[in-house]
Amino acid sequence: MTKWGLVTISLVCLLIAAGCRHDNAAIENEVREVILQGEASWNTGSIEGYMETYWKSPDLRFASGGKVTFGWQQTLDGYLKRYPDRAAMGHLVFSDLDIRVLSADAALAFGAWKLEREQDQPHGLFTLQLRRFDEGWRIVHDHTSSAD
Amino acid sequence: MTKWGLVTISLVCLLIAAGCRHDNAAIENEVREVILQGEASWNTGSIEGYMETYWKSPDLRFASGGKVTFGWQQTLDGYLKRYPDRAAMGHLVFSDLDIRVLSADAALAFGAWKLEREQDQPHGLFTLQLRRFDEGWRIVHDHTSSAD
Repeated sequence: MTKWGLVTISLVCLLIAAGCRHDNAAIENEVREVILQGEASWNTGSIEGYMETYWKSPDLRFASGGKVTFGWQQTLDGYLKRYPDRAAMGHLVFSDLDIRVLSADAALAFGAWKLEREQDQPHGLFTLQLRRFDEGWRIVHDHTSSAD
Repeated sequence: MTKWGLVTISLVCLLIAAGCRHDNAAIENEVREVILQGEASWNTGSIEGYMETYWKSPDLRFASGGKVTFGWQQTLDGYLKRYPDRAAMGHLVFSDLDIRVLSADAALAFGAWKLEREQDQPHGLFTLQLRRFDEGWRIVHDHTSSAD
């Protein structure tokens, strides 16, 4: 093989290798920021702002209890219906957030949620799958459960 | 740079690139097989067999409703307590299984579960994170929810 053949192979392999390297700590911070952004938006009373952290696609999957909702719009509609006003929205608190970086463009986030409201304090757990898009990390799958 | 220097760089990059390539269809099949193995073991009445599909580690995480259990042994103990006999175990049916390969050693599985029992038919959804170990794919995180 010629020297230039080897240089070409080197460069191609280097590009492939570079594409699958990732800085876990940096990704973890980016993902955490997106999730906390969602929490903060909720607490300004903006469900639309909260939904900015989700993938704007008909393929977004939102699972809660025994029900699966597909689609960003459908998920937003569900939230707007369940939380018609500030009293229903309450104050959202995420805790015990654990983020696992699975690749350069995939992460899993697990944590606990609580709604501090006048009448009650519903709470439970969530598992999120996030994917990196050009516009940043977005939730592509949300599985939420409520404590009984 | 000498020719041998370039050959060395080529080989090293090739190894790194090879390490991060993966065959999604093959992985999906492997992961599906593990999950269906768990279902089959359950239906022979073996909770221990079912638990073979989980990571045998104190770091296994099992989330259900609002409760998080850490540890393989603790998760097994919880299952044995909740399902003391064949009548309680019923017949387990998984459906709508969707597997997403996230990297060469990470996958996400989502689906619905149902227990067909004499008295009732509890059902709900599950999100599993699986990781590839030397012994094969194992569930490292299970988030299960019940329909009300």
